Amino acid sequence: MRASRYLIATQKETPNDAVVISHQLMLRAGMIRRLASGLYTWLPTGLRVLRKVERIVREEMDRAGALEVLMPVVQPAELWEESGRWQQYGPELLRIEDRHQNPFCLGPTHEEVITDLIRNEINSYKQLPANFYQVQTKFRDEIRPRFGVMRAREFTMKDAYSFHLGADSLQETYDVMHDAYCRIFDRIGLDYRPVLADTGSIGGSSSHEFHVLAASGEDDIAFSTDSRYAANVELAEAVAPAGERPAATREMEEVHTPGQKTIADVSAFLKSDPAHSVKTLIVLGEAEEGDKAPLVALVLRGDHELNELKAEKLEGVASPLEFAPEARITDELGCGIGSLGPVNLQIETIVDRAAAQLADFTCGANKDDYHLTGVNWGRDAEPGRVEDLRNVVAGDPSPDGQGTLEIKRGIEVGHIFQLGDKYSRAMDATVLDENGKEQVMAMGCYGIGVSRIVAAAIEQNHDDAGIIWPEAIAPFQLAIVPINMHKSDLVREKCEHLYEALRAQGIDALLMDEPKARLGAMLADVELMGIPHRIVVGDRGLERGVVEYKGRRDAESQDFAESQLLEILQEKLSG
Amino acid sequence: MRASRYLIATQKETPNDAVVISHQLMLRAGMIRRLASGLYTWLPTGLRVLRKVERIVREEMDRAGALEVLMPVVQPAELWEESGRWQQYGPELLRIEDRHQNPFCLGPTHEEVITDLIRNEINSYKQLPANFYQVQTKFRDEIRPRFGVMRAREFTMKDAYSFHLGADSLQETYDVMHDAYCRIFDRIGLDYRPVLADTGSIGGSSSHEFHVLAASGEDDIAFSTDSRYAANVELAEAVAPAGERPAATREMEEVHTPGQKTIADVSAFLKSDPAHSVKTLIVLGEAEEGDKAPLVALVLRGDHELNELKAEKLEGVASPLEFAPEARITDELGCGIGSLGPVNLQIETIVDRAAAQLADFTCGANKDDYHLTGVNWGRDAEPGRVEDLRNVVAGDPSPDGQGTLEIKRGIEVGHIFQLGDKYSRAMDATVLDENGKEQVMAMGCYGIGVSRIVAAAIEQNHDDAGIIWPEAIAPFQLAIVPINMHKSDLVREKCEHLYEALRAQGIDALLMDEPKARLGAMLADVELMGIPHRIVVGDRGLERGVVEYKGRRDAESQDFAESQLLEILQEKLSG
Repeated sequence: MRASRYLIATQKETPNDAVVISHQLMLRAGMIRRLASGLYTWLPTGLRVLRKVERIVREEMDRAGALEVLMPVVQPAELWEESGRWQQYGPELLRIEDRHQNPFCLGPTHEEVITDLIRNEINSYKQLPANFYQVQTKFRDEIRPRFGVMRAREFTMKDAYSFHLGADSLQETYDVMHDAYCRIFDRIGLDYRPVLADTGSIGGSSSHEFHVLAASGEDDIAFSTDSRYAANVELAEAVAPAGERPAATREMEEVHTPGQKTIADVSAFLKSDPAHSVKTLIVLGEAEEGDKAPLVALVLRGDHELNELKAEKLEGVASPLEFAPEARITDELGCGIGSLGPVNLQIETIVDRAAAQLADFTCGANKDDYHLTGVNWGRDAEPGRVEDLRNVVAGDPSPDGQGTLEIKRGIEVGHIFQLGDKYSRAMDATVLDENGKEQVMAMGCYGIGVSRIVAAAIEQNHDDAGIIWPEAIAPFQLAIVPINMHKSDLVREKCEHLYEALRAQGIDALLMDEPKARLGAMLADVELMGIPHRIVVGDRGLERGVVEYKGRRDAESQDFAESQLLEILQEKLSG
Repeated sequence: MRASRYLIATQKETPNDAVVISHQLMLRAGMIRRLASGLYTWLPTGLRVLRKVERIVREEMDRAGALEVLMPVVQPAELWEESGRWQQYGPELLRIEDRHQNPFCLGPTHEEVITDLIRNEINSYKQLPANFYQVQTKFRDEIRPRFGVMRAREFTMKDAYSFHLGADSLQETYDVMHDAYCRIFDRIGLDYRPVLADTGSIGGSSSHEFHVLAASGEDDIAFSTDSRYAANVELAEAVAPAGERPAATREMEEVHTPGQKTIADVSAFLKSDPAHSVKTLIVLGEAEEGDKAPLVALVLRGDHELNELKAEKLEGVASPLEFAPEARITDELGCGIGSLGPVNLQIETIVDRAAAQLADFTCGANKDDYHLTGVNWGRDAEPGRVEDLRNVVAGDPSPDGQGTLEIKRGIEVGHIFQLGDKYSRAMDATVLDENGKEQVMAMGCYGIGVSRIVAAAIEQNHDDAGIIWPEAIAPFQLAIVPINMHKSDLVREKCEHLYEALRAQGIDALLMDEPKARLGAMLADVELMGIPHRIVVGDRGLERGVVEYKGRRDAESQDFAESQLLEILQEKLSG
């Protein structure tokens, strides 16, 4: 591409309304423009990147055996009523009426449409498994769209849906898609993790999210230093500390702790380590019919955080989790929240695995303004039920036994789900099995936020000068920057020759041929746009037979003999 | 692609609700499925064709120097208010509200959005001309969607918009786009005509439509047998017949024609040729302020049709065209509509070019139940103003002087427009010219109905067995059909080998590897799907070292030596 026939559209100023770096850089690098809240136009530079991501996604979907289809953006309400989501889905589902007042919506996802299609097209187990994908414009009416294309209302998504007779077949395709997703993110060149995820409101049984690791991510991801294990912090298992619980070395002692209620207060007051104390939280248990819910105590190490998702899944604990009102605690347990402890507590007590390994620990004395030190399980209190109650923290052993956990922030760019029969049962999508018997199909669904990947790649790859594209998705692979092209015939000729030679080899080069453009401004644009390689061609270098090369991540430029340039570039670009 | 991993989805029955052949065949060949009125899902076979059309369109747009962008489907009302179209556009514009009750629409076209973008991005004449395109999902809320994807509500369109300083630059890009469109339709392999078109409601000064010729088309296209001239019948100029008007040979005579009013009646009654009579139509002229509109007579040959568009453009004729009420005619001219004629007619008379060339013709006598025969211009009546008043008919000379006109029906698949400053003025899209003065940009717009092309190609290319794809957009280039693959290892081996060899050369082959599929059913599917080439491989042929080949348009199959097959296929597929 020649800059003189292109729309570079870079901007020097950082736009006021852009908070995250990817949004700022996409505006500044001339990739997108805002049309309205959460609606963006992709300019040529942005679209080149988007298309490269799309191409990789398509190639890997095809390779995984998924068939591409294209479903309408506008969907009839009836199907959503059939699945039950017309009522359930919040206002993110933009409901519209056509000229005949028939209700429709703009598709945020296509489970209903594909299930309707497949129940009509597939009627025998012999046609299964089947897997369909599309790359398409989706619409979600976010209440507060933000971060540019990261959380836009209109966006490009790859969504795929698979159909099966039986859970084994679903698991097989799920694994194939898991691998395809890994290949996609590997090929794009992202640092990512497939993480175990909650199945949430979409329903179904098994799910992984694919997160690009970046400081601006909205989710905390725990992953192993030594293995592929990764999970949302909320879902990561906190395994029991290794080894036996240490033996008691101290006697239990009651100490006066006037006004000290939090773990931080008490630890400071007693000059002890919060990790050697426990905190006791009182939640509601499951009520017998007609009865008041009993109280249940959850005991964790002082430095650990309760994981509510884990707690509410436990037998005997109310779901959703509900903390006991303070009045009921003082009334039934005889002290305030800041003085609770497991010693002589007359309600069901569940102890976190880490708390259960403590010896000589500190806890509330179940008496206002008093705590106990030197407490030991077995001798002073029964640990009773020991469960995983807490969020993992960095340094915890990985649940798969390999390495320890690190925690980083992640941007969700992909999500795969085993839906089971949630939609196929509601919509009566069945096939005949080998015995001629009707069976409800099992389904999987597999999403990739294609436009979000573009932003996530920038969040992970930028510096003060701008974007640093992974080679596979750069808008241009290389820029040719002439010095005073309009004054020097030699420079013009060399640049044109190089540009045509690269083009002939299918290399996406940008020739900065705007007459009279200043060198500094051109180099700033090339860096801002994140072009991985650039060549500067000037008379002074040519006199010595060299041109200047600099990779986007290089600190210094290098001179290359003009005669060897093509060869060197081919090597750099293919590597 | 292997049929066993594909969704062929062919149907034997012709669907009831499909009227035109392309709609029927797209359903039967497993290309599309209806989701709701005017909303279609593209199945794998259909999408393969659509993508091939898209690719050709993109390649030619890129070659023409247009830059690809992607604008949102959902557009804010404000921009449409600025252009004035929020009110003007009919209910085809689907107006919607987001969760905050802000008004938006689903974009049927993107003049407003691109003009808004460009007025912000381009501010100097140095950045012009510029041309941007997108391939995108559009929505038009047709009152009665029909003919499948031919007139759907949601469809894929390529729309492009160019920006200029001055009309010359616009004309230059318009010509480049005209050529690009011709290359696109040539490459796809369609019989089409670029035709002069009315600029209609979109406004602007010059326009061509690109029509695929097909019997089911909705427009009548007149085109020359010997040149590239083509125009909508309504716009084609009817040139004057060659040569001088013949000399009079008969005396004018009044004949009694009781009850004979139409040309057909009178000609039958007098046993004369309608082409030797004239008909006289009375319309309203342009009224002086405050006055009643005068009557104007339009005189045409008896066998010709008035072209209202041409008539209403004439000086002295009211626009829109309005026929005079019969009462006023009898009152002022003294006879009924069936007895009018140009002899002694006391109002302004405009004579069509062909009528003006007649000698010895028949016409009404301006006296009920009487006609005149042997009438001659000059002697009996003054031809006065001679103009082009009529629709062209087949056999007319082409207006460019080369050949004669044929008339066929056409399907509009492309449209290019010189918009002038319609949008740029309303939306204040200006640049600074060489003198630093603000100038409103000129604009062009260029549309292609990408999804409609798929249907139009079928309308033009089908037979009783199904679709006959032009090679460039066939879903598969070739099908390999095994006989009893599940019983013969040799057949399986040969088919697999051929399939892999073709794949390695980038040839899109479909291997019909469904176990136990019947040969007849497979061949019917391959023909219905319109695959241009097919090979049948069976044990009996292999014994003789041959396989059977048949091109989709061939009457008979041929045997090819298995050893030369690849070579022969390469030649056929590259040709």
